[in-house]
Amino acid sequence: MVPEPLAHALRGAAKVVSEEELRAKLNLGRPLRIKLGVDPTSPDLHLGHSLLLRKLRDFQELGHQAVLIIGDFTALIGDPSGRSITRPQISHEEIERNAATYREQAFKVLEEARTEVVYNSSWLGKLRFADVLRLNSRVTLQQMLHRDDFRGRWEKQQPIHAHEIQYPIMQGWDSVMVNADVELGGTDQLFNILVGRDLQRAEGQPEQVVLLMPILEGLDGVRKMSKSLGNYIALTDSPDEMFGKIMSISDELMEKYYSLLLHRAMPPGTHPLEAKKTLGQEIVSTYHSTALAEKTRAAWTVRFSERRLDEAELPAFPARTGDAAAVVVAAFGTFKLAKSRSEASRLIRQGSVQLDGKKLSQPGDQVSLSPGQTLRLDKTHAVRITAA
Amino acid sequence: MVPEPLAHALRGAAKVVSEEELRAKLNLGRPLRIKLGVDPTSPDLHLGHSLLLRKLRDFQELGHQAVLIIGDFTALIGDPSGRSITRPQISHEEIERNAATYREQAFKVLEEARTEVVYNSSWLGKLRFADVLRLNSRVTLQQMLHRDDFRGRWEKQQPIHAHEIQYPIMQGWDSVMVNADVELGGTDQLFNILVGRDLQRAEGQPEQVVLLMPILEGLDGVRKMSKSLGNYIALTDSPDEMFGKIMSISDELMEKYYSLLLHRAMPPGTHPLEAKKTLGQEIVSTYHSTALAEKTRAAWTVRFSERRLDEAELPAFPARTGDAAAVVVAAFGTFKLAKSRSEASRLIRQGSVQLDGKKLSQPGDQVSLSPGQTLRLDKTHAVRITAA
Repeated sequence: MVPEPLAHALRGAAKVVSEEELRAKLNLGRPLRIKLGVDPTSPDLHLGHSLLLRKLRDFQELGHQAVLIIGDFTALIGDPSGRSITRPQISHEEIERNAATYREQAFKVLEEARTEVVYNSSWLGKLRFADVLRLNSRVTLQQMLHRDDFRGRWEKQQPIHAHEIQYPIMQGWDSVMVNADVELGGTDQLFNILVGRDLQRAEGQPEQVVLLMPILEGLDGVRKMSKSLGNYIALTDSPDEMFGKIMSISDELMEKYYSLLLHRAMPPGTHPLEAKKTLGQEIVSTYHSTALAEKTRAAWTVRFSERRLDEAELPAFPARTGDAAAVVVAAFGTFKLAKSRSEASRLIRQGSVQLDGKKLSQPGDQVSLSPGQTLRLDKTHAVRITAA
Repeated sequence: MVPEPLAHALRGAAKVVSEEELRAKLNLGRPLRIKLGVDPTSPDLHLGHSLLLRKLRDFQELGHQAVLIIGDFTALIGDPSGRSITRPQISHEEIERNAATYREQAFKVLEEARTEVVYNSSWLGKLRFADVLRLNSRVTLQQMLHRDDFRGRWEKQQPIHAHEIQYPIMQGWDSVMVNADVELGGTDQLFNILVGRDLQRAEGQPEQVVLLMPILEGLDGVRKMSKSLGNYIALTDSPDEMFGKIMSISDELMEKYYSLLLHRAMPPGTHPLEAKKTLGQEIVSTYHSTALAEKTRAAWTVRFSERRLDEAELPAFPARTGDAAAVVVAAFGTFKLAKSRSEASRLIRQGSVQLDGKKLSQPGDQVSLSPGQTLRLDKTHAVRITAA
């Protein structure tokens, strides 16, 4: 059964500019070009991206063409959207390494036949200074600094480097280069995508429709799920990682995850633990397989629900003294958790790490581990302290 | 006799950043590279430039190397310094046409042997977007918008187009590319030249000394002498034009012109008319020849000083009705004055144009010329109205 196009296109969307224009484009009788840009600033696409990939997929189901832009050029700057500080720049090598895997990851959701994958370095990398000047002449600093995040930094007198305002211009030029009919993004992308409309108009192209999806909060329940905040579930996470991460989120987040990821309400009256297991299972099922999802749920239930985590079975970790962040990296780095000092510091600050039930509070505090104590990261990860 | 280097280098300068650094560079015992950039946004170099060219010449006399940058790339934007609105862009063809004559004009002042002439398109034209991003990452928008003219426009909510802030960055990159030891400019160039220091430092180069000359007011006595304001004496003006323009300036301006152009005070007690003639003669003598200068002065004296301009000898102009600006263009365009509507409007607004001794006030006012009247532009230009 073919879904009703406008309703299907808008399912789950947070905002559209404008519904009227979208309706008109859907009636053109040709496949629309639906643009989604993703910057390869980390090795993994994550569930936050999946909302957008699935929206692209919705359009594919209506017969339209997905245009996935791997932002290997824009990644050089990093999108300053929603950031309160200048983003650190990333190396060419990292970008290339990350970009190489994005295609495959995206096809966990997209139909390959109706997807065009392009790299924006192929046009942005060729622009010369004179071209850049021409594009820049089409926007004003006032317009740029009116953007929420820039304005916030301006008002707080935090530096905004001159290259940062090139980001929206580059993203907008991408729309011109791929002849986008619709651009998808999170709600924090409104400004950037509108710049695309400006540049398309200046080039005599019809303006793209802006279709924004809600922002998925990360595992911390507070901030946007994002590569650079490290609070994400990657599409390439193993079934155990995916399931475990879902089990670790707060009960309050569940409702939103159900609505955004499963497109349905959380069943009323369900115990949160069961609701989480169902969510975890469905997500593993989408990105791995139904069989693996069932197996993962069962194994988790055996390990954690039906009996208490047996302290005696915990991995051993030799007693030591050091600052809290260093100790956490040493104890949990091998579990692929708290691999870096900054990740450990974040976990400590958010109160996740407990020594014998007492939260560590500051990454720089001195911590002394004694044999017999338990250092716990979350429900599923803890170590038992042994003699050094 | 070799002049004392520091004193000669600073003669007539308005500001130096810093004298200490300049002294140290002068003691390096090698020819310094003294940069002056000129954008070919009009066909002519003018007396405003001559202050800077003569300062370059001062350095040449001390054995240093002049690096004259023809800003054929920067001219694409035009320097927004000191401007209250976005500057109109100029075509590639115009720029090339203008640039072609600059070399020859500059050598009216500079020693050819100690002058390197370079075009900044030869490096700026090759920069790619990634290079532009790198340079932009070294400055902040706060720094740019702190500049007087940008700040003024910002506060008045006048648009500042994003390409305009590239100007100081380009000018700064020029300094890196030519390894400038000293950059010369008018006092409105302080900000731009300091950006050059920033970029040189970022590239590990010694920072250039900033040496600023006073701004020469134009013929209107109010605004900077400038190509785009049309209030200038071109180095290529004919002896008659040069002399005539000097004779048209206000008595108040004379003192400054003496000091800046002749490096001496106006002789006290001289009649302003005589002082002007002397100034005019010396300037014609510099840019043409002593013989021509004497001849021009003598001819002018015969025509204008010894007898009153005879109304009967004025060129005839047929009576007509129209708006003031259009009438002025029609009447004086052939004299190479008031060639455009905007120039005519400016002259009318500043009260230069009189019909039978009565000033025209608004360019848009309806004006009706009747046979027998005199329409006068300045002391040397007027037409006698005849039957249509």
